[in-house]
Amino acid sequence: MNIDFTFENPTRIHFGRSAMSHLAEELRLYGPNVLLVYGKNSIKTSGLYDTVLAALAECGKQVAELPGINSNPRYSQVLEGCRLVREHSIDLILAVGGGSVIDCSKAIACSAYVEGDPWQHFWEQNRPVPQHVVPVGSILTMTGTASEMNSGSVITNEELKIKAGHIFPMAVAAPRFSILNPEFTFSVPRHQMVSGIFDIFSHLMEQYFGGDDDNVSDYLLEGDMLALISAARKAVKNPHDYEARSNIMWAATMGLNKILAVGKQQDWEVHQIEHQVGAYCDCPHGIGLAIVSVPYYRLVAPYGLHRFARYARNVWHIDPTGKSDSQLAQEGIEALSSFIDEMGIPRHLSEVGCTREMLPEIAASINRIGSYHVPSEQEILQILQESF
Amino acid sequence: MNIDFTFENPTRIHFGRSAMSHLAEELRLYGPNVLLVYGKNSIKTSGLYDTVLAALAECGKQVAELPGINSNPRYSQVLEGCRLVREHSIDLILAVGGGSVIDCSKAIACSAYVEGDPWQHFWEQNRPVPQHVVPVGSILTMTGTASEMNSGSVITNEELKIKAGHIFPMAVAAPRFSILNPEFTFSVPRHQMVSGIFDIFSHLMEQYFGGDDDNVSDYLLEGDMLALISAARKAVKNPHDYEARSNIMWAATMGLNKILAVGKQQDWEVHQIEHQVGAYCDCPHGIGLAIVSVPYYRLVAPYGLHRFARYARNVWHIDPTGKSDSQLAQEGIEALSSFIDEMGIPRHLSEVGCTREMLPEIAASINRIGSYHVPSEQEILQILQESF
Repeated sequence: MNIDFTFENPTRIHFGRSAMSHLAEELRLYGPNVLLVYGKNSIKTSGLYDTVLAALAECGKQVAELPGINSNPRYSQVLEGCRLVREHSIDLILAVGGGSVIDCSKAIACSAYVEGDPWQHFWEQNRPVPQHVVPVGSILTMTGTASEMNSGSVITNEELKIKAGHIFPMAVAAPRFSILNPEFTFSVPRHQMVSGIFDIFSHLMEQYFGGDDDNVSDYLLEGDMLALISAARKAVKNPHDYEARSNIMWAATMGLNKILAVGKQQDWEVHQIEHQVGAYCDCPHGIGLAIVSVPYYRLVAPYGLHRFARYARNVWHIDPTGKSDSQLAQEGIEALSSFIDEMGIPRHLSEVGCTREMLPEIAASINRIGSYHVPSEQEILQILQESF
Repeated sequence: MNIDFTFENPTRIHFGRSAMSHLAEELRLYGPNVLLVYGKNSIKTSGLYDTVLAALAECGKQVAELPGINSNPRYSQVLEGCRLVREHSIDLILAVGGGSVIDCSKAIACSAYVEGDPWQHFWEQNRPVPQHVVPVGSILTMTGTASEMNSGSVITNEELKIKAGHIFPMAVAAPRFSILNPEFTFSVPRHQMVSGIFDIFSHLMEQYFGGDDDNVSDYLLEGDMLALISAARKAVKNPHDYEARSNIMWAATMGLNKILAVGKQQDWEVHQIEHQVGAYCDCPHGIGLAIVSVPYYRLVAPYGLHRFARYARNVWHIDPTGKSDSQLAQEGIEALSSFIDEMGIPRHLSEVGCTREMLPEIAASINRIGSYHVPSEQEILQILQESF
């Protein structure tokens, strides 16, 4: 643990089939005005919308609603939420949905009382949160981002064509409570489930691929990857396997609540690439990550061979006997590639709405940070072309 | 994750060589009256006592002191602390030391404003904390118990000859902040270092040995065990290896801050046995745990063969080819036994102040809870005799 750190995480998690029974006790901790934020129609067809409204009514809440949050939540939706918060003197933002809905809610919570333009304030100038941040609670219906237990928020600015993450202060912006019932994820369509699975896996790899110390966090990240692989294989065979879905759900939360990242050098270039692919093509986040991962890791592995060899041995159980680190690293990335196929995830940007003409502009717009190797713009373009 | 759970952990951790630089910012969050709780002379000889007093003075604090906390903290010391808290209207209890000092501080924090006898209130009747619980902060100098990031407190009632744990509510009793500088553990004598290492390992095993589902927590517990084994082997060779000591320190905190235990059936019988051994012989906690572990696990393994076989494969990397679960389980426990020897830990109760005559009385006083198998009093006595 050679890198000093400060860690805190204030979110109270209620997990399991009975998790919703804690909603009323949580709601009672806040004032009467609630902004209910959600996505498209899925919580209405599943009946969850009615359940939540009934609980809110029972606790005497006045409810304003912000429906229709996109899977890549838009800055215009954040601004609309800010307007509602101020207009209704909102005491609690209740996010019901997946990471997009919770990300959008956190952005609203921190932005509502910012003077001036919140995009400039946070995303461009990284300035502090205002005195008044509205508390957020969440009911999770789709797993992947871990937004339910962290303070990150990824928003797409349509005008600027930028999809960008911002990490707000954990103590004020992470949800105060999150309700995680794995059964709520049963109705998520298969392609969204596997997109979520790869998003989780990518979070774990992007925290893992950095540094070369023998860190507690490295072992825990390997553990979470192994748990996820085992559960994902069961879930794609039987999406209603509670044990598998519950393990995926918790592997996701642990995968980015930051406790497995402490003391770690990290990578996060794959997320940088996908954010801009998403900004141009609006493809599902996890699918975009999967498409660009294999060419990205093939590019950087030679610069971090020791770690990539460990990954092959410990995550994919590749027998190292008589193999060089370079061979092992290659076999590890091939195992990753097979896993993506096993999940039934598309492999080409051409399948998710990208055109070949977009690629140079996307490549030029991508932050280049990396870990073992900072890719050049030319290398990024090559990754996109190989992914096409 | 078949067992529903609620999880929260409010402790802010400052970790690393620079961790003490956060002390002043933490102290400023509290009122002027601080109770400084510590053990014997070690923080005075190391100079930490002077550093802490200087920081307290700089922040304008009035300081009362409760020194001399035993390695098995005594109920009489808790009561003395309660008296000091009330007399000086204490705003913050600052625990400087190992788990004993922090455990004692949490017990004081929760007990100071209890009406009547706190032992009866908490340990016997498990009643709620009073309105006023004093906040605790900690500076850790010895690693093992994870008391720095949980709400548990183990106290020895000398009159009743009972050493017993109590888990206070996380939200109010866990330290508000904990400062973890691995260098502070360099001066811990070797026998205390290895005692701490086995305490950590025992926490991990006692959370792991329960249930037979393929749980995220199981994989993470295996990861933490692997990290600890690797770091412990380096630390016994070179106790000043910062990377090894820092990994031990963080493996310990992760090992019992409860996040690796969610959704898990657990065991904890080894701690039950050791608590009573400790109440009678006052032996170092981790040493007592190591002494009774091997005979205990030999007894219960046949009732949880599948899990013990997994333990052998995943924690001790025992090749399963051609072996039955029973053989694997046995080899796993032998590997544990070799690890105890490798750490240089005594193997017999006779070496830590127990007499053969004590054993029946100790056996009769032990809570029998178990997991795969609840041992009879006769079986507990047999474990103690085998450990003698």
